Amino acid sequence: MEQLLRVQNFNVSQDGFGAGEHQSLERPFGDADPGALFAWAGATASWPHRTDPGGSRGLDDYFTRDFAYNIGAEIMGRNKFGPQRGPWADHEWRGWWGEEPPFHTPVFVMTHHTRPSFTLSDTTFHFVDDDPAAVLAAAREAARGRDVRLGGGATTIREFLDADLVDTLHVAVSPVEIGSGARLWESPEELLDRFHRDVVPSPGGGVTHHLFWRR
Amino acid sequence: MEQLLRVQNFNVSQDGFGAGEHQSLERPFGDADPGALFAWAGATASWPHRTDPGGSRGLDDYFTRDFAYNIGAEIMGRNKFGPQRGPWADHEWRGWWGEEPPFHTPVFVMTHHTRPSFTLSDTTFHFVDDDPAAVLAAAREAARGRDVRLGGGATTIREFLDADLVDTLHVAVSPVEIGSGARLWESPEELLDRFHRDVVPSPGGGVTHHLFWRR
Repeated sequence: MEQLLRVQNFNVSQDGFGAGEHQSLERPFGDADPGALFAWAGATASWPHRTDPGGSRGLDDYFTRDFAYNIGAEIMGRNKFGPQRGPWADHEWRGWWGEEPPFHTPVFVMTHHTRPSFTLSDTTFHFVDDDPAAVLAAAREAARGRDVRLGGGATTIREFLDADLVDTLHVAVSPVEIGSGARLWESPEELLDRFHRDVVPSPGGGVTHHLFWRR
Repeated sequence: MEQLLRVQNFNVSQDGFGAGEHQSLERPFGDADPGALFAWAGATASWPHRTDPGGSRGLDDYFTRDFAYNIGAEIMGRNKFGPQRGPWADHEWRGWWGEEPPFHTPVFVMTHHTRPSFTLSDTTFHFVDDDPAAVLAAAREAARGRDVRLGGGATTIREFLDADLVDTLHVAVSPVEIGSGARLWESPEELLDRFHRDVVPSPGGGVTHHLFWRR
């Protein structure tokens, strides 16, 4: 069975940035306002961090409830995992997500500074220092026939795009400008030589969903 | 956990019909052309009846791949199950779908003429002569905590709407007119007193998706 590498619910600004500069513990998205980037997803019934019932079940909810559909592993960059850079001072940091991370699968964190794997609830984090093709091969094996989610950030997605390893992308473009930081693209049109694309404005307002799949 | 009753990928004409008159073995949708109604779904990668690889993975594919998402049972009317009317002459008819029906869950067929349950692959068909609320209660129990799909036809969906039992509806409106037959609505606006709605034209062309969820 075909095992796709899928980017899902990745949010960028109008000018193509997934996060701003100056990421820190307090500001996982640096100078960018995550509220402006994610508001569309937080309003849906299937948003994994929702604590109350309710939420919309229209178009935007198809994207949030598809997040786990047929996914068996995730790949992320170290900057999605945490704000530290360079060698680990210690191993106390275990991600932004508390004791119940929303992944529920093996997660492969790409870093030049590896550390031992650990498990939180039903999510196990592995730390790998390898090129995109090798990391994808390991994630595919861990996914046991299911697809692999490429979780970001923008720099990590760029590496996999440059290696031509991505099969589908869902990118939500928000009506904000970030100006500098981690950039996914200058313009979504850059991908049209290799991908088909649907452009779908969210009826809930704000973002425009761009859906790419391989030609 | 909340168990929703969901209408998914239900197709109607511009004038609100899910099927034409004169249903027969050769024409499951009667005088209506199923090609015009379903072409959008058949073009997607996740269409369950697809026999070759390929297919689009844009917006329309979210709808076809959501078909089984968190679904534990289906309810359908007898006219979706087959072309016969009145008492069964025999029990040889086992649905339109061959030896591998695309449901993979218990299916409850509403009919005044019950017959023994039977199983094809991982789909079991039960035949029930009861009102919508009682059939939904039985389907919910069979779904073991998952949602229940209301499969149609239009007459059956109307019965559940009239009993106010439907939680979400995805209806694809095709740019064709059928004129007479089984009608879902005069206009989708009829549901707006009870439901929120997103209207999403398919970027693939042809149909417009209407997504309703309870107010």
